[in-house]
Amino acid sequence: MHSQVEHMRSSVEAAVDCSERLAHSTLAERADWLRAVAEALDAADAELVPLADEESGLGEARLRGELLRTTDQLRFFADIVTEGSYLEVVIDNANPHLVPPTPDLRRYLRAIGPVAVYAASNFPFAFSVLGGDTASAIAAGCPVVVKAHPGHPRLSRRTYELARSALEFAGAPPATLGLVEGFEAGVGLIQASGINAAAFTGSLAGGRALHDLAVARPAPIPFYGELGSLNPVVVTAAADQERGEALARGLAQSFQLGHGQFCTKPGLVFVPTGSQLEKVINAFVSGDEGRLLTESITHQFRNGISVLKAQAGIEVVAGGTDDSLAPTVLAIDIHDAINHPELLHTEVFGPVTLLVRYGSDDDLAAALDAVGGSLTATLHCTEDERLTGLVARLEKIAGRVLFAGWPTGVAVTWAQHHGGPWPATTSPFTSVGATSIRRFLRPVVYQDAPQNYLPAALLDDNPLGIWRRVNGEWSAPDGRPGRE
Amino acid sequence: MHSQVEHMRSSVEAAVDCSERLAHSTLAERADWLRAVAEALDAADAELVPLADEESGLGEARLRGELLRTTDQLRFFADIVTEGSYLEVVIDNANPHLVPPTPDLRRYLRAIGPVAVYAASNFPFAFSVLGGDTASAIAAGCPVVVKAHPGHPRLSRRTYELARSALEFAGAPPATLGLVEGFEAGVGLIQASGINAAAFTGSLAGGRALHDLAVARPAPIPFYGELGSLNPVVVTAAADQERGEALARGLAQSFQLGHGQFCTKPGLVFVPTGSQLEKVINAFVSGDEGRLLTESITHQFRNGISVLKAQAGIEVVAGGTDDSLAPTVLAIDIHDAINHPELLHTEVFGPVTLLVRYGSDDDLAAALDAVGGSLTATLHCTEDERLTGLVARLEKIAGRVLFAGWPTGVAVTWAQHHGGPWPATTSPFTSVGATSIRRFLRPVVYQDAPQNYLPAALLDDNPLGIWRRVNGEWSAPDGRPGRE
Repeated sequence: MHSQVEHMRSSVEAAVDCSERLAHSTLAERADWLRAVAEALDAADAELVPLADEESGLGEARLRGELLRTTDQLRFFADIVTEGSYLEVVIDNANPHLVPPTPDLRRYLRAIGPVAVYAASNFPFAFSVLGGDTASAIAAGCPVVVKAHPGHPRLSRRTYELARSALEFAGAPPATLGLVEGFEAGVGLIQASGINAAAFTGSLAGGRALHDLAVARPAPIPFYGELGSLNPVVVTAAADQERGEALARGLAQSFQLGHGQFCTKPGLVFVPTGSQLEKVINAFVSGDEGRLLTESITHQFRNGISVLKAQAGIEVVAGGTDDSLAPTVLAIDIHDAINHPELLHTEVFGPVTLLVRYGSDDDLAAALDAVGGSLTATLHCTEDERLTGLVARLEKIAGRVLFAGWPTGVAVTWAQHHGGPWPATTSPFTSVGATSIRRFLRPVVYQDAPQNYLPAALLDDNPLGIWRRVNGEWSAPDGRPGRE
Repeated sequence: MHSQVEHMRSSVEAAVDCSERLAHSTLAERADWLRAVAEALDAADAELVPLADEESGLGEARLRGELLRTTDQLRFFADIVTEGSYLEVVIDNANPHLVPPTPDLRRYLRAIGPVAVYAASNFPFAFSVLGGDTASAIAAGCPVVVKAHPGHPRLSRRTYELARSALEFAGAPPATLGLVEGFEAGVGLIQASGINAAAFTGSLAGGRALHDLAVARPAPIPFYGELGSLNPVVVTAAADQERGEALARGLAQSFQLGHGQFCTKPGLVFVPTGSQLEKVINAFVSGDEGRLLTESITHQFRNGISVLKAQAGIEVVAGGTDDSLAPTVLAIDIHDAINHPELLHTEVFGPVTLLVRYGSDDDLAAALDAVGGSLTATLHCTEDERLTGLVARLEKIAGRVLFAGWPTGVAVTWAQHHGGPWPATTSPFTSVGATSIRRFLRPVVYQDAPQNYLPAALLDDNPLGIWRRVNGEWSAPDGRPGRE
């Protein structure tokens, strides 16, 4: 234990020591570093994928896809850095004619400094040592100290070794990436004065505890946590009538993905009373016991299912045998759910989903209002329905609003948003997609600076060739005004 | 007391009730509302300015300027809303050729919901009831409940009445703006479950207390506090030799502005040992006792000065008579300051500044590293000096880096940033300038949504005429691709 804490301290110290070098590295340098790491992980897939499967039991096919997604993500952030819009450059030239006159002001975003990343159990590649948090933080110019997840310690170490070698070979300071292990080191990490921000994906309880430590520091730091989500789905009567069986198949596939261990698992599905979906879903639910990621998740899943089953009015639609880890579908009438609102905001991580049978739109609205913040909210309706009010209600509680799809699967793109009102995330930021880099940056504005003191992004001749807002107007990389 | 808390509760409830109406109001509507408020306040200047002077003692000339700045700021946010880039629209069309295929994703920023604004004492217009926090929150589409500052209660009520009438006349829901008073109501406001974010400008102690309440809530909310700042200034030996007297005059003017009650007051000035600046500054320091904003500020100023004067090595350069409120310049050798680092991060609000005499660049660097986060950091050097390392050090601790100017006076423009590492602000956001609106918005992404369910900002034909990022490329309002 003690040596893990010592190691954490020296890792943070090393990160602090190289943080200004990283903050002032060029866009091209950081893009190279990220691509070098991607290449090293891709080259080691034959070693990494079986190791990940051994520790997580998620299956080699899924893990191979996840590794590809992870290395694509590293390359995506290399592109984002090179493109340079993420710097959010805004330039206002001096205006001596105003009263009072305004100075020359040039704003950009700079790296926030050393970042702590808490790896998740359920994506041993994509949300772990070299996952999106680490990729976006390094892209921003921040050294990262990762707290490894105890669910896949050997994979974490091996990924780290490969990445660290690749980074060093590509010319990055060695302390660009650090790895620490153990509960005490994790608790100490978020309190370490050298850490300037933290990112976390995991449980509400664990995330809340780390959040509370982050904000209680003498100098509080931003805590970017993705903590939990019910991901409500609404199926209209018309949609159920039109395609109830297809919806049942889609739901079954989605909530069983990764044995139900996705943060975007649809956990709460509002279906019309007497739905086709409920009648046929059993046929699409696997009887496979499977395996959950960790002992703690296994314990909490069994406990969660038995608490659900003990609620008045709950019926088992599929699975649900005592102590089984097999996928389970439960159902309840909406009035029973409204009377036990904890059903509407308690996530059970693992392969279980709860159908809530509704009759009236008013009941549906009342129940949705009781659902806490979610990463996603999904609507299945028909083409001729006009449900603007319902969609506004979904937007109010979620960060991603889906139509005719299922929330599992989070594309890593420019527009993606993976976040939502508490407890989905602890901040109005995303942990997936291009804009996740914004978490690890802070603005600085230069006032009346001579050209020789300005960062490259702010120079008159725009040597980085990036889009900038100049005197309130967008300005293209070639210098022509954006709007004419 | 009790009725103030009751009034706070009903104000929050009313804000919640109208918050979705506001979130879905059009850009043009909100721009109209903001302009209507600006007009109403401008029309009442003959009433408001004397009232503000009576309560704050800041002088009619300064207050008339501040009111103009405040109404210009309301109009500026109307422009920002209409321009629409603040929505940060990003659209990725579906790509069925990728493995796995990616859906259609359309991201924008929507209003976060009801906002609490804690008014400041030192800007009775610009950081009070209708100041930048309120303007940017309403611009974002959030109803605002303002906690009035007890330093100017009558002005707060009158400003509120005028704004509320103007809002109502312009068609805004009445609860777009609320006003509460009293300590208990202020404490209850930040804990009210209907409040989704809070903004504050004031002392470190008060801000920290509210911050701690905001983050301890069952559902924590973002707390945007601007708490305190030493605003270090560095004068090089060459600059002092070239223009020591002009620098003394500039510093004297800046630290005495508003009787030293600016958050950007230069409180810590590194000067070469034996500087011209120190020798002549006395001539530019007023002997005027003046008046401070509140009793509590008066008490803390007297206390702060006496603590400073008791430090070993401190000398009085100007003012500094016991218990006087007149402007005071103190000086200390850098080694004494490094040995008492609290001197380097304790703000005394009011007309006092501390000269720190340095001999070597190493001493200067060590002292700057001991200074906490600041809103600003300023360098005065000569044209032929090349101090890149020193500027990097200033950027590390501040949100605005100035050359050959003084930090007081914060232009309200697109590029402005008024924030900095803790304790300057509690978040990497600004409270002044165009980007301050970002504090009151959260992203939402629509996945595979039919056109009829999309917000106007996300429609294919771009009816709002705004800049958007489409498939990774900037796209102009007229639809032509930005980069070719």
